[in-house]
Amino acid sequence: MENLSPQATRPDTPMAQPFADAARAAVYETIFSRRDVRGQFLPQAVPDEVLARVLLAAHHAPSVGFMQPWNFLVVRSPEVKQQVRGVFAKAHAEAAAMFPDEKRATYSKLKLEGIVEAPINLCITCDRQRTGPVVIGRTHIPTMDLYSSVCAVQNLWLAARAEGLGVGWVSIFNEPELQAALGIPPEIVPIAYLCIGYVSHFHDKPELEKAGWLPRLPVADLLYYERWGSSDPEHRDPLTATVAQLQDDVQTRGRFPR
Amino acid sequence: MENLSPQATRPDTPMAQPFADAARAAVYETIFSRRDVRGQFLPQAVPDEVLARVLLAAHHAPSVGFMQPWNFLVVRSPEVKQQVRGVFAKAHAEAAAMFPDEKRATYSKLKLEGIVEAPINLCITCDRQRTGPVVIGRTHIPTMDLYSSVCAVQNLWLAARAEGLGVGWVSIFNEPELQAALGIPPEIVPIAYLCIGYVSHFHDKPELEKAGWLPRLPVADLLYYERWGSSDPEHRDPLTATVAQLQDDVQTRGRFPR
Repeated sequence: MENLSPQATRPDTPMAQPFADAARAAVYETIFSRRDVRGQFLPQAVPDEVLARVLLAAHHAPSVGFMQPWNFLVVRSPEVKQQVRGVFAKAHAEAAAMFPDEKRATYSKLKLEGIVEAPINLCITCDRQRTGPVVIGRTHIPTMDLYSSVCAVQNLWLAARAEGLGVGWVSIFNEPELQAALGIPPEIVPIAYLCIGYVSHFHDKPELEKAGWLPRLPVADLLYYERWGSSDPEHRDPLTATVAQLQDDVQTRGRFPR
Repeated sequence: MENLSPQATRPDTPMAQPFADAARAAVYETIFSRRDVRGQFLPQAVPDEVLARVLLAAHHAPSVGFMQPWNFLVVRSPEVKQQVRGVFAKAHAEAAAMFPDEKRATYSKLKLEGIVEAPINLCITCDRQRTGPVVIGRTHIPTMDLYSSVCAVQNLWLAARAEGLGVGWVSIFNEPELQAALGIPPEIVPIAYLCIGYVSHFHDKPELEKAGWLPRLPVADLLYYERWGSSDPEHRDPLTATVAQLQDDVQTRGRFPR
């Protein structure tokens, strides 16, 4: 007997399901409570099992053309850390001189790295030649491989947060001097120099926000529709209103999305 | 009465705790099951609440000097999508010609974008001038602001995975043509053009891995100690052995770290 309504007998298109509520909430908690750590590192050793998990998380980042352009240079030696600390200190002094007078005093007081205190330092790099000159997805935007290594950094950072590990990204280096300190050849790009370790606590907000350096921008102001500059200052699109409300929940009530 | 052992009365240094096991496992599941989606988009609308959550997750990425250099250009109009699809198609034809003969046939068969099928397209950009010329942490490595916007992409991608949303990053565009299609000024860098929507399923492995384009690299081979090139081919460092075992669990047993 034929069914007259083919729609009725055709199974619904299957759809991948979202995570269960608690699992989704854990992902958001990781994202919203992740911090760039400079001053709270503890000397406790990071077990190899934990470090292995966050490294493998980094290795499972997206990469353009599946080129996996990263390496992971693990630094545990106090001597190497001290050398890198020296490269930072020089650049940091140069940087201070670049700020206008009224900002320089504040800049100089900020703690911007925990290179020596963090038990683990990690340099994540990008080998732009890894899979030859022509890479799927990099044919027109050559920086895509650099971006892949950045995704590896962010994967590691979030995994680390869930492990209770703090991560700080130090970027105040003359690149050739950092490369010299670590023996990194000129053609390999050091993407991120990370300080990793257990921490006494995570700040509830980014330190530069707490210090009044810059405020968190209203996300609704950063939203455009269909075309650059086409914003929604009166929140007429329900998406604008929804995201503004959500940000208010996070900022004024400390309540993360779930 | 004085305690003769000051250590005994000093409380232990507090230490931030890792997430509970199930929460940590959820974070790893997100990271390891995230895929670059091109072909499984469903037409189901994405609720504003869901889109707002993933956008706010992006907005809470780390950014150099807290500059938050990103904008979020949401594209829902079929006409704009078609225009962008045209920009892709032209670059895609140019790209095919760049591959050696033996790779070109495979390249041409790959589905590399879901621009028109995905209900939401999103361009995440970088405004390099947002907070003036001198930025904390960008004084010596000028690409740091671009990297911040990439971190926003990865935050969004992982949040989307937990929501059951697929995300595909399309990068085969002549950048000025993409900018023209979206009205993006020359000084604003389009970092990622993302296709977003519910999906029928997520592949168990990256599509380029499944297609035999390139294999997943052994993470232990990417690990150096203290100095570039100082690898550990015999897995003498317990970290090398641990991460190699973990990768084997993921690849051959489909068992994610917890």
